[in-house]
Amino acid sequence: MSSHKRKDVSKRIARIHGHVHGIMEMIDEGRTYSEIVQQISAVKAGLDSAVQVIVEDLVDDCIAKSGKSKSVNEILLQLKEVVSRLT
Amino acid sequence: MSSHKRKDVSKRIARIHGHVHGIMEMIDEGRTYSEIVQQISAVKAGLDSAVQVIVEDLVDDCIAKSGKSKSVNEILLQLKEVVSRLT
Repeated sequence: MSSHKRKDVSKRIARIHGHVHGIMEMIDEGRTYSEIVQQISAVKAGLDSAVQVIVEDLVDDCIAKSGKSKSVNEILLQLKEVVSRLT
Repeated sequence: MSSHKRKDVSKRIARIHGHVHGIMEMIDEGRTYSEIVQQISAVKAGLDSAVQVIVEDLVDDCIAKSGKSKSVNEILLQLKEVVSRLT
């Protein structure tokens, strides 16, 4: 499995975790739905960015292994699976 | 501000918070990108559902106040603002 950008993905998800916690606090504080929806949209954008990093990592791995044909198929299958799971 | 379904929204966001924490653990455990992306998509769907509850709450409030024309404009403006913040 590709893992060069795994730390980057991990950091992004940790940041999103904190962001969602912030939304919980906003709800408790009685902030407006408009403000809450704005933060929910920001979290969704953050999740999209994390997926982008994952796809980039898989593509980079594919390029790096392009000389070693045996593992390219494996990476391409994984990439195909990841893309199929995007909503 | 509308707040009948605020507790429902709060519960959904708390569940999403736990879900994101689960993704952090999956990354640490070395789970595949495919599995991680599947969970990210599930979190995004959960966020969409929370927004749906917020919009429903605002619409319900609007209907409930339809006899008191003064506050209808206020709710409609808030609804418009929420929809404009959806990505």
